[in-house]
Amino acid sequence: MAQGIIRGVDGIYLDWAATAPPYPDLSRAAAELAVDLFGNPSSAHAAGRAAKTAFEEARKRLAKALGCAPGHVKFTSGGSEANAIVLLSLVYAASGGSVVISAIEHSAVYEQAMVLERFGIRVRVVKPGPAGIVRPGDVADAVDADTRLVSIMAVNNETGAIQPIGDIVSAVRDASKGFRKAPLVHSDAVQAFGKIGFKPAELCLDAASMSAHKLGGPRGSGCLYLARGLDVLVRGGGQEDGIRPGTHNLAGAWAFSQAAERACADLPASLENARSLEARLLDGLRSIPGARVLPDGRVPASTDYSPYIVGAAFPGLGGETLARVLDDQGIYVSTGAACSHAKKERRVMDAMGVDRDLSFSAVRISTGRDSTAADIDRFLEAAESAYRRYKT
Amino acid sequence: MAQGIIRGVDGIYLDWAATAPPYPDLSRAAAELAVDLFGNPSSAHAAGRAAKTAFEEARKRLAKALGCAPGHVKFTSGGSEANAIVLLSLVYAASGGSVVISAIEHSAVYEQAMVLERFGIRVRVVKPGPAGIVRPGDVADAVDADTRLVSIMAVNNETGAIQPIGDIVSAVRDASKGFRKAPLVHSDAVQAFGKIGFKPAELCLDAASMSAHKLGGPRGSGCLYLARGLDVLVRGGGQEDGIRPGTHNLAGAWAFSQAAERACADLPASLENARSLEARLLDGLRSIPGARVLPDGRVPASTDYSPYIVGAAFPGLGGETLARVLDDQGIYVSTGAACSHAKKERRVMDAMGVDRDLSFSAVRISTGRDSTAADIDRFLEAAESAYRRYKT
Repeated sequence: MAQGIIRGVDGIYLDWAATAPPYPDLSRAAAELAVDLFGNPSSAHAAGRAAKTAFEEARKRLAKALGCAPGHVKFTSGGSEANAIVLLSLVYAASGGSVVISAIEHSAVYEQAMVLERFGIRVRVVKPGPAGIVRPGDVADAVDADTRLVSIMAVNNETGAIQPIGDIVSAVRDASKGFRKAPLVHSDAVQAFGKIGFKPAELCLDAASMSAHKLGGPRGSGCLYLARGLDVLVRGGGQEDGIRPGTHNLAGAWAFSQAAERACADLPASLENARSLEARLLDGLRSIPGARVLPDGRVPASTDYSPYIVGAAFPGLGGETLARVLDDQGIYVSTGAACSHAKKERRVMDAMGVDRDLSFSAVRISTGRDSTAADIDRFLEAAESAYRRYKT
Repeated sequence: MAQGIIRGVDGIYLDWAATAPPYPDLSRAAAELAVDLFGNPSSAHAAGRAAKTAFEEARKRLAKALGCAPGHVKFTSGGSEANAIVLLSLVYAASGGSVVISAIEHSAVYEQAMVLERFGIRVRVVKPGPAGIVRPGDVADAVDADTRLVSIMAVNNETGAIQPIGDIVSAVRDASKGFRKAPLVHSDAVQAFGKIGFKPAELCLDAASMSAHKLGGPRGSGCLYLARGLDVLVRGGGQEDGIRPGTHNLAGAWAFSQAAERACADLPASLENARSLEARLLDGLRSIPGARVLPDGRVPASTDYSPYIVGAAFPGLGGETLARVLDDQGIYVSTGAACSHAKKERRVMDAMGVDRDLSFSAVRISTGRDSTAADIDRFLEAAESAYRRYKT
């Protein structure tokens, strides 16, 4: 990305997995829509109906991008809320039973799942292999007759590892044959939808969570794909078929649907660009003496990894330090999930069996629709120079 | 409001309690802010820090409008979510005990409270008097040693009745003296903040819920005032001191804070305008043969009612029918809360002891910053004519 293309940031933005810059034209058009169609979509009068019509058009547009029927899309305030709706529905329905998650889930699933233990719901945590990929067989082994929910993310936000969701769904269905009730299978797909392609219905998922701001839509918008109804814990005005209460955010839903449509239309070209940048980055990292790709065996164009996210380690130099040195030069990467940087937590890397020495020297480089080869080169140059200068 | 001032609606908008048209300049400026300061406020790098700085400025601005310290303001996706955070914190902490609410709460409190019964938490529902006002003594009587939460709204959304929150807080504190633990006192203030003035700290509340879109801010933004920490049920990335997970919605928070500042600055003038419209409306309603003000005894400029919200009944003509006839003429009123119109529910009116014949003939007229005497006159004229023509 050329410097200054993103206003407010004179630099190289390589943290698209934390958030994507919104499409400026959609942001502006949504602001006009909020003014023009200000009615509450739940109001019966013409001002409400006009807003409702636009809202339902947004739902249809988003459903098309997701490859599902509009009735299966419920708008939420974001990916975190979509995850919480699914996990907390267990608390509403009954106590007891178990849930199966992976050790590499985003905290919106992981921390929420841990709360379920207060309600007598056991949480079984499946570790990924050293490549950061969860094995369908391991998930199936963790499922038993009392399992009520399986939640495995589609793409890991730190390593880019694509989880075999289709195979996981099949394995869970097979494992739960003969059980009185099969578990709900859910996937947090915020790093997949609009990036690598993600169709929850094709994958036979029961539920999936999407976020607008990861693909160029606004903050504060997301959606939940639901194959069927759900008894939810959070109640109120009955919006979204009772799945998510609160006045509809028309501007947010509209911009999300437009951004999703655009991201999905541009997906082949974006992916091609991302793969070329991934190859450049992986090659470049391996040419820096001592630097490592995380996981080690990752090769360019592997279908096991999202090309938009690359983990790298610089043993002997703290990831936080490297990120700060790069930051001073206007190059923006992260050391993990944005929301966990303060916690100094390395849960994902630990689960993959990565040494703490290595994981604490890790940074995440993530690209997006506007990223360029020059961005990668600037990062590599600056990282190599910082590594040479500061490593202990 | 002159016709066409609100684009997309050629008509007379008298449903401001459902949602207020956003301030157009703030909507547009927020869209630019979302583009300029696109970083994730949780990111450590310069793009994140720039967004974080603006986010914290928004918190300070909003706190000033609320008359509290910035640390006591937690941004949410709206009033409903703020209510749910407080009510569901009980479920996190323990089962059992009781909560006290009024019979006239918005469904975001009422329906959510009913869910608490699944967790062994008894819900005591206090009825208002015939004027739609909850008596502090009745609330205090409902509180006992096992009461964990009292939640009474600040302004009723159907009648405009201002609840005596300060007196209710005192009465609850008195009633719970000597108890091992005093109940948390919360107020849903979405119809009060920025409209009649509302300072949760001055009222000695423990918690209060506010909504941006009720005062000219964007949909999808709200906040929770919290006097102290809370163990919440919904978990994730730890944002808002762990009170509300999910990527910060900077544009939403910014526009909310600006709209709140403006609404509070304009409050004396807005209130004066609203009181003059209220007087015109109450006089006009009483001059229509057979029409009634709900509640009957309401007089102009009474400090017991928000002047922005007036309930009226047209016995012998269904409220839904009247609203539809007015709608056809481009005059937009409602028959209750926007989100309950489909449910044909009259919970608030029932609780006040209003006859079903009367409550099913009720409409709500609600004004806002741009409402004019001409709007009221057009409504009165059209309502009188419709009533004469269609009443049975």
